[in-house]
Amino acid sequence: MQVKLNQDERIDRLYSKHISIIQSDQVFSFSLDAVLLADFAQTNKRVKKVVDLCAGNGAIGLFLSEKTAAHIQMIEIQPRLADMARRSVQLNGLQGQIDVINDDLKRAGDYVDKDSVDVVVCNPPYFVNYETSEKNPNHYLAIARHELTTNLAQIIDVAAGLLKMNAKLFMVYRPDRLSDLITNLRAHRLEPKSVQFVRPRSNSDANMVLVAAIKDGKPNGLKVKPDLVTYDGDDYTPKIKKMLYGHE
Amino acid sequence: MQVKLNQDERIDRLYSKHISIIQSDQVFSFSLDAVLLADFAQTNKRVKKVVDLCAGNGAIGLFLSEKTAAHIQMIEIQPRLADMARRSVQLNGLQGQIDVINDDLKRAGDYVDKDSVDVVVCNPPYFVNYETSEKNPNHYLAIARHELTTNLAQIIDVAAGLLKMNAKLFMVYRPDRLSDLITNLRAHRLEPKSVQFVRPRSNSDANMVLVAAIKDGKPNGLKVKPDLVTYDGDDYTPKIKKMLYGHE
Repeated sequence: MQVKLNQDERIDRLYSKHISIIQSDQVFSFSLDAVLLADFAQTNKRVKKVVDLCAGNGAIGLFLSEKTAAHIQMIEIQPRLADMARRSVQLNGLQGQIDVINDDLKRAGDYVDKDSVDVVVCNPPYFVNYETSEKNPNHYLAIARHELTTNLAQIIDVAAGLLKMNAKLFMVYRPDRLSDLITNLRAHRLEPKSVQFVRPRSNSDANMVLVAAIKDGKPNGLKVKPDLVTYDGDDYTPKIKKMLYGHE
Repeated sequence: MQVKLNQDERIDRLYSKHISIIQSDQVFSFSLDAVLLADFAQTNKRVKKVVDLCAGNGAIGLFLSEKTAAHIQMIEIQPRLADMARRSVQLNGLQGQIDVINDDLKRAGDYVDKDSVDVVVCNPPYFVNYETSEKNPNHYLAIARHELTTNLAQIIDVAAGLLKMNAKLFMVYRPDRLSDLITNLRAHRLEPKSVQFVRPRSNSDANMVLVAAIKDGKPNGLKVKPDLVTYDGDDYTPKIKKMLYGHE
């Protein structure tokens, strides 16, 4: 399958080397967060419907297509990014499995039935949009990083609405907002059941957190899984290499 | 200083070997949780007033007396445990620094002024008192472990009431109730600022969590510190040995 690339775009092949993704440093390129979330998200044969909120260039949904036969719907507000995602889906011949919806996630209910989804994944913008916060002058990147078009409470509200009872949300987030994350999940009938912290080195503070929450799950029973350490000296650790390259 | 020991009691000397503590397996003996919390709690010269809620046999306050000159008030509901704590205070000649209050923590305000405390420490009962939950047939131990006489929301409410603005609460808790902990802290004007997970081995799920929260602290900015791993093979790790024995 041939797809048209814009001037600033390139095709990256990563993750077990089966998936090709259109990237652009000027617009959006996925980072380790997406790889970690795709690895952390659990699927099984009963999972028929997956939704990726804040899909960006579609990296997470594309990675997930390797571990599930479920139908995947990506929702991305930025037309340019949704277009990249759509072309990446074509590039991988995954049009039968993946749909890309270019709209605000608050209208997710126009495309996906309420209480119908088995798994929601989300790599949201991490930063609160304080008036004083310094934003990226590149508007594409600013929207992906700061809560300009949505915010954590809204994202979690939408995810909770889409999920079936007992279905799971998987998110990647920043530990410095862990309290916001947990209080918002609980406020929207999503009970955190598993978290994993990611650190550059075993003796560093965590710089990412992965969380799995169950809709209408019983309170508590949270598991804090072993850390994921990303670097060993200047190199990725074997675990991360395996996620990125498919081998150590 | 000589103190009277009951038949079931023994004196343990631990923690840099300067503090002696009356223990009893039939009534209460402190565990690693207390040592970790005393190590985790930060003090400085401006700290004049410390309160230990759910003080048990007084281990945490006794340990803390080695790192602060502040006045320490221990509050313990069980008369037998408060008596052990009081005799341990005498045994160490610390009557000038430590008071033991034998009362329900909900009456803490009768002994300590509101908004007056610089540091609150607490190693509370961890387990929700479900009607169905199996409790220890030993009543002393059941009260120390299950929420029979108090609960997390009440403890945090009392702590928040005692603390000065910008003063800190340090707690040790179970990771499976981390969401309860964080939502209760936030509901009582206490913002979690630092957490540290404790695991038996680096590849195990966490079995304890240490948390520091600031009264009226700005939201977020939570640090997830490097893990504390307790075992190396069958032996404690050097870090834990240092806390327990004062040397590796």
